[in-house]
Amino acid sequence: MTIFTGLSAFPPTPAGEDGIVDTDAFAALVDRLASTGVDSISVLGSTGTYAYLDRDQRNRAVAAAIEAVGGRVPVVVGVGALRTSWARELAAAAESAGANGLLLAPMSYAKLSDREVSDHFKAVAGSTGLPLCIYSNPGTTNFEFSHDLIVELSHVAGISAVEMPPRDNEGYATEIDQLRERAPDNFRIGYSGDWCAAPAFLAGADAWHSVVAGVLPEPAVRLTRAAMAGNVEETSRLQALCTPMWKLFETYGSLRTIYGIAELIGLDVGIAPLPVQGFTGSDQLPGLSEALERMVAN
Amino acid sequence: MTIFTGLSAFPPTPAGEDGIVDTDAFAALVDRLASTGVDSISVLGSTGTYAYLDRDQRNRAVAAAIEAVGGRVPVVVGVGALRTSWARELAAAAESAGANGLLLAPMSYAKLSDREVSDHFKAVAGSTGLPLCIYSNPGTTNFEFSHDLIVELSHVAGISAVEMPPRDNEGYATEIDQLRERAPDNFRIGYSGDWCAAPAFLAGADAWHSVVAGVLPEPAVRLTRAAMAGNVEETSRLQALCTPMWKLFETYGSLRTIYGIAELIGLDVGIAPLPVQGFTGSDQLPGLSEALERMVAN
Repeated sequence: MTIFTGLSAFPPTPAGEDGIVDTDAFAALVDRLASTGVDSISVLGSTGTYAYLDRDQRNRAVAAAIEAVGGRVPVVVGVGALRTSWARELAAAAESAGANGLLLAPMSYAKLSDREVSDHFKAVAGSTGLPLCIYSNPGTTNFEFSHDLIVELSHVAGISAVEMPPRDNEGYATEIDQLRERAPDNFRIGYSGDWCAAPAFLAGADAWHSVVAGVLPEPAVRLTRAAMAGNVEETSRLQALCTPMWKLFETYGSLRTIYGIAELIGLDVGIAPLPVQGFTGSDQLPGLSEALERMVAN
Repeated sequence: MTIFTGLSAFPPTPAGEDGIVDTDAFAALVDRLASTGVDSISVLGSTGTYAYLDRDQRNRAVAAAIEAVGGRVPVVVGVGALRTSWARELAAAAESAGANGLLLAPMSYAKLSDREVSDHFKAVAGSTGLPLCIYSNPGTTNFEFSHDLIVELSHVAGISAVEMPPRDNEGYATEIDQLRERAPDNFRIGYSGDWCAAPAFLAGADAWHSVVAGVLPEPAVRLTRAAMAGNVEETSRLQALCTPMWKLFETYGSLRTIYGIAELIGLDVGIAPLPVQGFTGSDQLPGLSEALERMVAN
């Protein structure tokens, strides 16, 4: 097992209304995750609210997580930022803090061109000794990676994986084949969008970058083991248990829903980064507690 | 003339690769603008790269601009930020520094709901005594304001204007009528997208939020005076002179183009916020110098 393969759990980052990270609550979250069988922990992903935290708060969170994990599993750090100089700075800080890998999304305000994204990724990869995973998330970054661009970047030293957005079930095998044909052999292809983990693994994906595993690791570990072993029947059974939860994620988005799950299971994840409002209290999602109950059933 | 009417010039914010604002160069830029006949100066708009500057750099830029303008024209400050708490903090800092108004875009990473944007705007407006202009810029913020939401916000104390994105020429009169019918009488309706200033003014718009006026104020002042006076013939003549420039803005975006203009006229605006690359040096836009020459012809 190398980094960027298997199940990576993306925990939320507990913070208050002012965006100050609660490092004790965060350490407790990742400490719990590190012993559940996940293959890595990715801090400061999209639902880890990296976009809503200052660079100093992000560095505080990274240091707390790495200390709490204590080397039990690799720690990947999201270093996406609107400025190239900021992403490089965050990458250097993560490396100094002892991170094992980096995750980089082409966070945008002005829509970026392929050349701008390519130069940005090369500049960040060139500034660190850590392996870097391309994070393709068109829904939040407003940038769509072409296969050509992913392949170009896969040949850049240090860029060793991609996290792809969800597709139609039929699309995974074709996409993975197309990318594998042109990328180096050790380039890892993973997927985000929790509902796609089962079909993507069965189609040969290397990794699941999982939001739900950040708060509910056990069912995600079971699904990963069955699907990576190619056990279609058990994968289908577990996927069916998760389906109501995946429907809520697809309909309402993972970010807001994760705060609702945390509230239901009594996990301290702080509050959602306003203006983003978590589904908690009187806004709790109808159907979430049933979906949760079904998902954690064995 | 009140704030949020007439021509507002949006200067770029000179900064280096690290995002540190060159306050001397910025003061020189706004000092020059303040005596050209523009009705206000809006600092830290989209092409003022507010999204690419830290809050402390933004506050430095605001202080430098207000001092350089010295009360000759009102200064409006862009306070958009991904977090509500940050936008409130920036609004408070702008107010303390002596700003005359605020401009707020619903900057997003996770796509925002109408309710989230509404609560965000109310929270910021409620934290300041300054009049606030809603900045609708779906291309960069990934949020589309409905007329219903604009009308709802127009009735909130302190929210006194909207900056709308460009439309088809025929759309301005209808849109302005529809909004005026439901918004308070003193609610100001302006447009961005420099190519739309002439048709929008002729259709009754109150304001032009102008990128080009941030570096080339004179032709923008002439166009504004003719169009606000309802002088259709002179407006058409001036609009024709600007058309090649508008075509470049529409095709390549204002942000990258403005660095090319600055290079051609010898204005120090720093470098574009990488990963965004300005059209300068060997990347200079073909046709820009001809468009520029035509635009400044009388």
